[in-house]
Amino acid sequence: MASVSRVASRLRPASNPRQISHRITRIRPFAQRRWQAGQAEATSSATSEPRQIDVDGGATKGPSPAKAIKFTSESYPDLKRDPKYAKISSEHVEYFKKLLGSESAVVDGVSQDASEDLEAFNSDWMRKYRGHAKLVVKPGNTEEVSKILKYCNDNMLAVVPQGGNTGLVGGSVPVFDEIVINLSRMNRIRSFDEVSGIFVADAGVILEVADNFLAEKKHIFPLDLGAKGSCQIGGNVATNAGGLRLLRYGSLHGNVLGIEAVLPNGTIVDDLSKLRKNNTGYDIKQLFIGGEGTIGIITGVSIQCAQRSPAINVAYFGLDSFEKVQTAFREAKGHLSEILSAFELMDGRSQNLVTKASGRKLPLEGEHPFHCLVETSGSNSDHDNEKLEAFLEHVMGEEIVSDGVVAQDQTQVLDLWGCREGIPECLGHWGGVYKYDLSIPINELYALVEETREKLTSAGLVGDSEQYPIVDVVGYGHMGDSNLHLNVPVRRYEKEVENQLEPFVFEWVSKRNGSISAEHGLGIAKKPFIRYSRSPTIIELMRQIKNLYDPNGIMNPYKYV
Amino acid sequence: MASVSRVASRLRPASNPRQISHRITRIRPFAQRRWQAGQAEATSSATSEPRQIDVDGGATKGPSPAKAIKFTSESYPDLKRDPKYAKISSEHVEYFKKLLGSESAVVDGVSQDASEDLEAFNSDWMRKYRGHAKLVVKPGNTEEVSKILKYCNDNMLAVVPQGGNTGLVGGSVPVFDEIVINLSRMNRIRSFDEVSGIFVADAGVILEVADNFLAEKKHIFPLDLGAKGSCQIGGNVATNAGGLRLLRYGSLHGNVLGIEAVLPNGTIVDDLSKLRKNNTGYDIKQLFIGGEGTIGIITGVSIQCAQRSPAINVAYFGLDSFEKVQTAFREAKGHLSEILSAFELMDGRSQNLVTKASGRKLPLEGEHPFHCLVETSGSNSDHDNEKLEAFLEHVMGEEIVSDGVVAQDQTQVLDLWGCREGIPECLGHWGGVYKYDLSIPINELYALVEETREKLTSAGLVGDSEQYPIVDVVGYGHMGDSNLHLNVPVRRYEKEVENQLEPFVFEWVSKRNGSISAEHGLGIAKKPFIRYSRSPTIIELMRQIKNLYDPNGIMNPYKYV
Repeated sequence: MASVSRVASRLRPASNPRQISHRITRIRPFAQRRWQAGQAEATSSATSEPRQIDVDGGATKGPSPAKAIKFTSESYPDLKRDPKYAKISSEHVEYFKKLLGSESAVVDGVSQDASEDLEAFNSDWMRKYRGHAKLVVKPGNTEEVSKILKYCNDNMLAVVPQGGNTGLVGGSVPVFDEIVINLSRMNRIRSFDEVSGIFVADAGVILEVADNFLAEKKHIFPLDLGAKGSCQIGGNVATNAGGLRLLRYGSLHGNVLGIEAVLPNGTIVDDLSKLRKNNTGYDIKQLFIGGEGTIGIITGVSIQCAQRSPAINVAYFGLDSFEKVQTAFREAKGHLSEILSAFELMDGRSQNLVTKASGRKLPLEGEHPFHCLVETSGSNSDHDNEKLEAFLEHVMGEEIVSDGVVAQDQTQVLDLWGCREGIPECLGHWGGVYKYDLSIPINELYALVEETREKLTSAGLVGDSEQYPIVDVVGYGHMGDSNLHLNVPVRRYEKEVENQLEPFVFEWVSKRNGSISAEHGLGIAKKPFIRYSRSPTIIELMRQIKNLYDPNGIMNPYKYV
Repeated sequence: MASVSRVASRLRPASNPRQISHRITRIRPFAQRRWQAGQAEATSSATSEPRQIDVDGGATKGPSPAKAIKFTSESYPDLKRDPKYAKISSEHVEYFKKLLGSESAVVDGVSQDASEDLEAFNSDWMRKYRGHAKLVVKPGNTEEVSKILKYCNDNMLAVVPQGGNTGLVGGSVPVFDEIVINLSRMNRIRSFDEVSGIFVADAGVILEVADNFLAEKKHIFPLDLGAKGSCQIGGNVATNAGGLRLLRYGSLHGNVLGIEAVLPNGTIVDDLSKLRKNNTGYDIKQLFIGGEGTIGIITGVSIQCAQRSPAINVAYFGLDSFEKVQTAFREAKGHLSEILSAFELMDGRSQNLVTKASGRKLPLEGEHPFHCLVETSGSNSDHDNEKLEAFLEHVMGEEIVSDGVVAQDQTQVLDLWGCREGIPECLGHWGGVYKYDLSIPINELYALVEETREKLTSAGLVGDSEQYPIVDVVGYGHMGDSNLHLNVPVRRYEKEVENQLEPFVFEWVSKRNGSISAEHGLGIAKKPFIRYSRSPTIIELMRQIKNLYDPNGIMNPYKYV
C-alpha cells in the first residue's frame, strides 16, 4: 500500500483564504481509534429519546436511585395486565429449573424473595421503564429457547425476550409479570470465513466482542452504536439498529444473511444462511429484523462483514444555509463517494448551547447557522487525503462552505466529534429537553426545526430569561441518513409547551411521509404514535403477521403494534 | 478532482518479471461504457439456467421458431389446471374493457381470435415456457391494478403478473389460462432526489430507462443485468434480481426503501417510503422482494441509488489453484476494498473450451487451472490505478497470481469481459449443456466442479472422442457472491448423464447449506427442488405467508412454493 509520509500541501481556497488557510490543517491517519468517539456519539444519541420530564427536570440530569424508577404500569395507567395470561406458579418455576439444570440460569422471585436480583432485568438502563417480572430464565442454547417458549405458549405465560437491555423504547423489559428470557448465556461465535467475510454467532454475543473479533481479522461489523459494550447482536437485529455505520454499510435488512429464531410454539426457524444470494422463496427472516421480539426470539445471526478501513479522516464546517448543507452533502457524495462514512448536521444554535453549557470552545470562529461533520474511511490514507482536499477546495472555492477545519491527529478527531456528541448532554443543562428522533425527506429535514421554533416563539414560550420555559429550539442528526434530532431544551416542564409540540411534530412528520421512529423502534414508547408513520392498511398487515406467528399473544405483549 | 494525466509507471513484479512486465499495461479510464459489457455478461449468464435438452441438443443452440415452443402443460404433464379457477367469459372481458377504457389495454382472445397477439405474453424469451392465456390486461395505474385484482379474486380468476417477461424460470408467463396482468403501461418515473439519491418510479419502468435517467444525474441504479433493455424494475424487485452490481451495492433487500403493491383482494399496500431509516413495525415490503408475484403485484418502487463511479478498470489473471483464487479474492478485498466491483471466476477448462469453440485468443499464454477477472469502479482514476497497481504488485510478488493483464482501453476491457461472457455460448458448441446456478460457501465453491468431473469421468462418460457424451465439466461464476455456474457441455443427451448429475448436484449443494437458485428465483423451473435449499419448517412458513395474503390462490399459481 502507498506510503502515508507524503508531504501535504496547504489548501488555498478561493474565498476568505486567510482565515481558512490557517485553519485547514492536514490530516494524518490515526487508524481505528475514531470508533471510540463513535461509541460515545451513539451513547449520547441514546439520550435523544423523547422522555417524561419531571417538574424539576430531573429526568434529563442523569440517573436517580433505583428505587425512584417508576413502574411502567404507573406511567401508563391505561395499560392493564391482560388476564388471559397465566400467573407464574412454583410449578412453572420448577419446570424451568429442571429444564435449564443450573441454578444460575433461573432468577426466581416466585418461590423466594429475589427482588434485588430481579431489578436489573426489570428496569431499563435509562431508568424510565420498570416491570414486575418474578422470573428470569437464561437459556444456554437454541433447544432450550425452544422448550421454554413451547412451555410458555402451552401454559399462556407471557414473555419478554431480553438481549443487552440497552434499548431506548422500553422494548426489552417487562411491563407486568412477563417472564424475562435473557439471552446472555448464548454468547458463542460460531464461525467466520475470512474469504467471504461472513460471520455467524449466537444472538447473545456482545456487539463489541463481535467487532473486536472481526477487527483482528481485519473486518468490521456493519453496525456500531453507543451501547456496543453491552448490547447483543441478536437484540441489534431484533430492533433493526441503525447506528453509526449505516451511511456506509447500509441497513441490517441488507447485511443480515441468515437468522436462527424460535417461534412462540417452539418451532426453530433454521434460516442461518451463509450465502450472499439465495432466491428460493419468501425472505421470512426479514420479519424478525426489527420485529422487536414480538413474533419469536432470534437465537443466531449470520451477517456479511466488510474489510475494515485503516484510514479515517474528519472535517468540520460552518455553512450559511440549509441549502448549502444539502449542496455540501451532495458534493461530499460526489467527491468522497466510496470513502464517505459520516455526514452529520448540527445547527448553529445547538453548537452555541454546547458552548454555553459546557464552556467548550468551538473549532470555528464566528457565527454559522449550520455546521457539518464529515468523516471518510478508506483503504489508503494518501488517496483519502487527496480526495478530501479536492472536496474541501471545491466546497470552499464555490463558497458552499464558509469555514472549516480538518483533524490532524486523533485528539482533534475526538474534539471534532465532541462538538456533535456533546449536544444531547449539554441541552439538558437548563432542566429538561423535549427530544424527537425523526426521519424526514432530506430537503425538508430542517424546515421542521424552523417551523417549530417559529410556533413556540409566537406562542411566547421562547426567551433568554427565566420567565420563558423554552431556552431554544435546535436540530442536529445524521444528515447522511435523513435522520433529524429535533430538540427543545426547557427550563421547566409546562403543559403549554407539550400542547404546542404534540401532535404538531407528529402531524408535520406524517404529512411528509416521515418516520416518528427513525432507528429506535416502537417498544412501548412509540407504540401510540405508529399511526403517524404507517397507514391503517400497513398496521393491519402488521397485526396479521403478529397473529399468524403468535396467536396466543405471549411474545412481548403491550408493545409494538 | 485529481487529473488523470499522470504518467503511469510499469509494474515490476518480483516473480516472472519479463513475462508479466510486457503484459501488464497501464489502465486508462474509459468512463461508463463497461456496463455494456456487463449487460452482455448477464445476458450470457441468463442462458446458464438448467434447461431441457432436446435429443439434438437444439435447446442451447438458440431460439427456434415460435410454433416450436412446447406448452408448459406438455413439458410438465403432472401439472393439471386447478378446476377451482373460473374460466374466462365474455362478461369478464367486458368488465376489463370497460374498466381500462382503452382497446389497446386489453388483448382479448376470448371473444375473438387473438392467438398471434397473445403469443408474446404467453411465452418466455428463452422459448422454454408457454401458456394458454386468452386475456391480457394492461393497467395504467395502481387503482386499476387494484380493481383488476379485486375482480379476479371475487370471481376466482387466476392471474400472472408480468413485467418485462425476461425471467429465467418461467415465472412471468401463464401455465394454463391465467389472465396476464402486464405492467408495461405503468412506466412513469415519479421522483428523484439528487441529495439523498432516492429514486421512485412505477413498477413498469424499464431498468435501462431508469439507469439512463440516473446516469444523467450522476447516479447509478444499484442493479444491472443483461435484460436491462427489457426488464422492468418492478419485476426486478419481485424476483429479487442479483445481477452485476450486487458485490458492490448489495441486495435489493437493503436498497429498496419502499414498495407500493396491490394484494389479491385489491388492497393497496402503500409502503412507498423515501426514508433510509424507518423503524416502525415489521418490514412487510420485504415479503414482496423475491415474492415472484405470488402474494401481490408491485406497482411502485422506491430505491436508494449511489453516486455513479466515473473510473472503471479491469484485470485478468491466471492462477494455479482454487486456494490461490481465494487468496487473490481476499487480497482484492483488502487492497481494492471500497473500489472492488467485480471478482469473477473462470476455470482453465472453461477458457480452453472458449478457444476451441470460438477461436478466441485468450489474453494469457500458457495453461492456468484458474482465471479471475477483477473490476474496480471508483471516483478517482489515479487513485484506482494506484490501488490496482499495488494489488497487482502484491499478488504477483507473492506468487498468488501466475500471470495477468490489465486493460488499457475500452476495447481491452470488453475483450477481457468477453473471456468471461463468452463461456455460456461457447459451451453450447458441442450440442447441449447441463447448467446449474448455485450458491455455495466460498471455500467449497469449486470442489463441486471437481467432484462432479471425477464422478462423471469414473462413470466413463467424459472424453475427447465422439463415443463420450460429455465434452468436459467446467465451473465459472460470480466468485465475489459465492455464485457458481456448474456446466457440463455434452455432445448429446443421454439419460445416464442426467442420472449421474441429479440428484447428486442438488444433494451436494444441500449438504453445504447452499442454494439451488442463487439469483434466478423459483418460478416453475426450480419449484420441485426447493427442498434442497430450504427446510420443511421454512417451506411451511412460506406456505403460511402465501395463504395469508392469497387465500384463494389466484396469484401466479402452479409456481414458487
